[in-house]
Amino acid sequence: VSNYKQADFPRGSTVLDNDHGTAPGFFVDIGSEGHTCRAFFLPGVPSEMEPMFEAGVVRALPRVRARLHVRRLRVFGMPESEVNDLLAGLEQGCGVTIGYRASGAEIEVKVLSAERAGELYGGAATRADAALGEARARLGEVVFGDGTMRLPEHVGALLLERGLTLGLAESCTGGLVSHLLTTLPGASAYYLGGVCCYGNSVKQAVLGVSAASLDEHGAVSAEVARELAEGARRLLGVDVALALTGVAGPSGGTHDKPVGLVHWAVADRAGTLVEHRCFPGGRAQVQRRAALAGLWSVRQRVLSA
Amino acid sequence: VSNYKQADFPRGSTVLDNDHGTAPGFFVDIGSEGHTCRAFFLPGVPSEMEPMFEAGVVRALPRVRARLHVRRLRVFGMPESEVNDLLAGLEQGCGVTIGYRASGAEIEVKVLSAERAGELYGGAATRADAALGEARARLGEVVFGDGTMRLPEHVGALLLERGLTLGLAESCTGGLVSHLLTTLPGASAYYLGGVCCYGNSVKQAVLGVSAASLDEHGAVSAEVARELAEGARRLLGVDVALALTGVAGPSGGTHDKPVGLVHWAVADRAGTLVEHRCFPGGRAQVQRRAALAGLWSVRQRVLSA
Repeated sequence: VSNYKQADFPRGSTVLDNDHGTAPGFFVDIGSEGHTCRAFFLPGVPSEMEPMFEAGVVRALPRVRARLHVRRLRVFGMPESEVNDLLAGLEQGCGVTIGYRASGAEIEVKVLSAERAGELYGGAATRADAALGEARARLGEVVFGDGTMRLPEHVGALLLERGLTLGLAESCTGGLVSHLLTTLPGASAYYLGGVCCYGNSVKQAVLGVSAASLDEHGAVSAEVARELAEGARRLLGVDVALALTGVAGPSGGTHDKPVGLVHWAVADRAGTLVEHRCFPGGRAQVQRRAALAGLWSVRQRVLSA
Repeated sequence: VSNYKQADFPRGSTVLDNDHGTAPGFFVDIGSEGHTCRAFFLPGVPSEMEPMFEAGVVRALPRVRARLHVRRLRVFGMPESEVNDLLAGLEQGCGVTIGYRASGAEIEVKVLSAERAGELYGGAATRADAALGEARARLGEVVFGDGTMRLPEHVGALLLERGLTLGLAESCTGGLVSHLLTTLPGASAYYLGGVCCYGNSVKQAVLGVSAASLDEHGAVSAEVARELAEGARRLLGVDVALALTGVAGPSGGTHDKPVGLVHWAVADRAGTLVEHRCFPGGRAQVQRRAALAGLWSVRQRVLSA
């Protein structure tokens, strides 16, 4: 019965195509001769609404020449306020507007350049490019990409380019790094697999972490991170292995090993690099920040190899 | 420099506490004597905004006696239109309003019962409970929980209650099931770990899938799903193992094995159950639907054991 409702449309409306599901969308022209307004009605489900918006709405609008030029670059691991300070004066100097969008440890820097009345064609694009180049130079090595490519995708592209394979041993991140990598189509070209070693029994039996290290230093330690990375590299037969072990919280923290403390290690044929940090935030944030910090270390390691 | 901006507030405003970051929030009373309106200004970052809203806004509002009673139950794997049809007439019969919120294969059914003028205290709550009981009875075994507990949490609670441990072998879901389980605090009590066996080399070397099965049936097959689940159960030393292998897309589909086809298996001491389905949608949806379908099979298996 309730499926029939989806086939009811107002008189005079035009149904929009939906190749992604059954949610209905349509448009209708309101008003009288010469003063009409086209009203679009779209479903709420994003996976059906978004393609319908592109195909049904954007294409139905009259074309205008692009008047706003947008350039983007992405920064990792620097506070937004510091990025802002480093780019001080760039807006006035280059005649552009700069926007920031922080998402975890990643910041998207967006350079907007609007065409000016009477300006030569291409002037706005030139200003956008100049501002982007200047921003890149000022920010230095924290910039990891143009455009909209996020860190996991960037690391994937880098591994593919170098012909390297990656493997994982995840304890506190519980499969999040693996999930972030495999969200991307084509990940099998560089990502062979990983072990989520949540229990200590898995750390020992599957990845070969020694009982002595677990006893002496605990599961959350530089020693265990190192053994996990080296064990994963051997077990999975990969070029580069990333391992993470930490206290994701909310419980399990101690004075010496507070919630948020994560040790991670990257092993490749040149050796193993171990790092640690205490990440702020709740469980989900600690997991996400640790996952991205680990991927950043893989990037640095691959770039310096 | 830009950090100072966060300390600037309008004259006469009251700053709201923020224990979760540095984003500023405040309120200010607008208007004159007897006709004032309190305007709240909150930051956009959800992790800082939400606790500030609870602590600074909700508590500052005058208390009213609850006039709306809400009950929830959760349904898995039934189309929203079918749920709607099964609950036909319940609103009128019980004097409540019913709302649905679908999220992937899960549907939250929300029973809303408003107090009526002159009604005895408790009447609305009684109607809400009666409607909830009736909805549960009509929907039957697709109902997996009251309240807001989602499927991964529900499966975790069930494993904990039965004293069972779970392990995973994930190919097409790439760590998503592991991620869904470890998002929850306390998962280590029942989840020991998993292997993301993205490459066939990992399926063979780590989980013991036979070369013959891979050659004869391919990685996406009932046979390989079964060997993965049984291999994971042995390797990880768990009571129950779930394995998933499929074509997440967008490429890699063939006539016989189209994008969306997923085979999954649940192995426990009684044996191994193998299922398959072709899930609709893009890569992310196939992965998510397969992950939840696998968890649902674990639930069914544990309940029937």
